[in-house]
Amino acid sequence: MRDFSLNHEALSLNTATVRKQWSLDRIIEECARRDIRAISPWRDQVALVGIDHIARQLRETGIKLSGYCRGGFFPAADKPGLQAALDDNRRAIDEAKLLNAPCLVLVVGSLPGALTGPPAYHDISRARSEVRDGIAASLEYARQVDMPLAIEPLHPMQAAERACINTLEQALDLCDELDPGRSGSLGVAVDLYHVWWDPKLAAQIVRAGADRLLAYHVCDWLAPTRDLLNDRGMMGDGIIELKKCRRWMEEAGFTGYSEVEIFSDTWWQKPGEYVLDTCIERHLTVV
Amino acid sequence: MRDFSLNHEALSLNTATVRKQWSLDRIIEECARRDIRAISPWRDQVALVGIDHIARQLRETGIKLSGYCRGGFFPAADKPGLQAALDDNRRAIDEAKLLNAPCLVLVVGSLPGALTGPPAYHDISRARSEVRDGIAASLEYARQVDMPLAIEPLHPMQAAERACINTLEQALDLCDELDPGRSGSLGVAVDLYHVWWDPKLAAQIVRAGADRLLAYHVCDWLAPTRDLLNDRGMMGDGIIELKKCRRWMEEAGFTGYSEVEIFSDTWWQKPGEYVLDTCIERHLTVV
Repeated sequence: MRDFSLNHEALSLNTATVRKQWSLDRIIEECARRDIRAISPWRDQVALVGIDHIARQLRETGIKLSGYCRGGFFPAADKPGLQAALDDNRRAIDEAKLLNAPCLVLVVGSLPGALTGPPAYHDISRARSEVRDGIAASLEYARQVDMPLAIEPLHPMQAAERACINTLEQALDLCDELDPGRSGSLGVAVDLYHVWWDPKLAAQIVRAGADRLLAYHVCDWLAPTRDLLNDRGMMGDGIIELKKCRRWMEEAGFTGYSEVEIFSDTWWQKPGEYVLDTCIERHLTVV
Repeated sequence: MRDFSLNHEALSLNTATVRKQWSLDRIIEECARRDIRAISPWRDQVALVGIDHIARQLRETGIKLSGYCRGGFFPAADKPGLQAALDDNRRAIDEAKLLNAPCLVLVVGSLPGALTGPPAYHDISRARSEVRDGIAASLEYARQVDMPLAIEPLHPMQAAERACINTLEQALDLCDELDPGRSGSLGVAVDLYHVWWDPKLAAQIVRAGADRLLAYHVCDWLAPTRDLLNDRGMMGDGIIELKKCRRWMEEAGFTGYSEVEIFSDTWWQKPGEYVLDTCIERHLTVV
């Protein structure tokens, strides 16, 4: 297993971690200042500054992407909605390509409309079927332009609104169905916040193998957790066995970045400089 | 599938649903008044009134139990703690027997101490191992007195504090390990709130079969959910496909009660009479 106590060259910052403090261009500046070598930005953050500006800034600073957030949200109430989702995913793939992302992360969606009100339907099997079809359709274009898609299983507590793919096993079943040849064009993003509890986690990481393990996200699970979305913990403040899980990833062949992604009303209220410095310190000690 | 629109003879009330409104003796009175034929009481509610009083009241009203809540919480920081948990489970089995419960429901526990502060350890595999050993030890006594144990998989969002058994598959793996002969002494409590999201739910209900399906709990999953513990919805107010899931249960051979269990700060603030009347009405229409 890599020794993270030596330096933080394997650290990537998911830019949602300081989204309330700074715009993306400032985030990139602050990362460069701290020798953080990779980020994973969100589309809305990119759009606010302008993608050409961000692309140039990345070239100038030498900062890489560990992923691009995000595609997905495939299910919809009707055919025009399904088509609109496919069109939007195509644009996301193009942006990921322009920014040289190693993969586009997919938060696949679930019951249509549940994020903002009563969903259009309650049939989660239908949502899962629409997700499969949506990924299959997007994968064709993604392969043409050589942009791997990374399915991110989300915690079951987000199964109604955000993602109906909720375990690594389920995500890998879909990978096997849509990319049986393990071409490298389809894999998974393993976010420990979503999967730490899974009794099959270690076995499914082995099953995934290096060619399906496209991204690795860390933060911590707080006990108690006070909010289903925005109460993630800083690494070391919760109960996830971070080093044990990283060992599983690396023994399966993963050599990529350890991407810090913390949605937290608590951390969003702290100065961005302090958040980044803490991320680095915890990366050196507990990740 | 049974027709629940005809009457509510299959309805059972988990008495936590109105625990903030009434003591258990009053709950039983109110159930009798509404021809609710079964309840599933909690140990602390029983203790407050006195178990002999409750036993007599149940005999007089003819109200049955659909389960007894609860045993479990096996993991502990040290050997005396593990032994204390076993002793407590033995007492719970005795109480369940005295009240003629068809099963003792197990909320198995997880990281010791996490419910009230920093846990004694973070190793969820160790907790799972201690749960297996604890159930195995309790099962010996439970078999002697003929009291089936029902493992309740809890939602993964409660994996740190309350239960490290988080899917029906995991619970059934444990049943197969500890009771390979399917003696009827060990099974599962299927609470839809905890398992509705599981892509393997239908298949695992089939796997369980009638002899492992010892209890069935209903409520609803609200979207959005505002609290990880006490924001359960009344049946029909959320997104769980209640009738579809009940069909799976009944096709697998389940013929027992449909037990309403709603932990909800919202419903605990309403008059108990209104809560029970609503449970009955929803049972007739959407369960």
